[in-house]
Amino acid sequence: MADLPIAAVTRIAKASGAERVGSDAAELLVSLTETYIGKVAQEANKLAAHAGRKTIKAEDVEMAISGI
Amino acid sequence: MADLPIAAVTRIAKASGAERVGSDAAELLVSLTETYIGKVAQEANKLAAHAGRKTIKAEDVEMAISGI
Repeated sequence: MADLPIAAVTRIAKASGAERVGSDAAELLVSLTETYIGKVAQEANKLAAHAGRKTIKAEDVEMAISGI
Repeated sequence: MADLPIAAVTRIAKASGAERVGSDAAELLVSLTETYIGKVAQEANKLAAHAGRKTIKAEDVEMAISGI
């Protein structure tokens, strides 16, 4: 899975103080970020279903990250 | 900061089982993801500096996430 653009992820990393990001580090960061999104989405989906909804709302995401 | 494309983040969320993602949830997910990248990058940058480098390598990212 490589859905996130490496350039955007690297830009955010640099905006957070990273001086230079090696290409191996950038690829790993993208992969970890996709895993993070997946975990939050899975948990938020469970919470939406628990509330009788098929659509994830911001409140599901908020509750999801408090448990991750 | 809105560097990550909402469509890509939503696609990853759906690939992880999310049925439908509301726009408020998608925006929050993007924002949280950017915060996550920033945290990992900051920690990885410290670890690179600690190893006498200005360039972040994959090993820095790996060590960074074990502490987050």
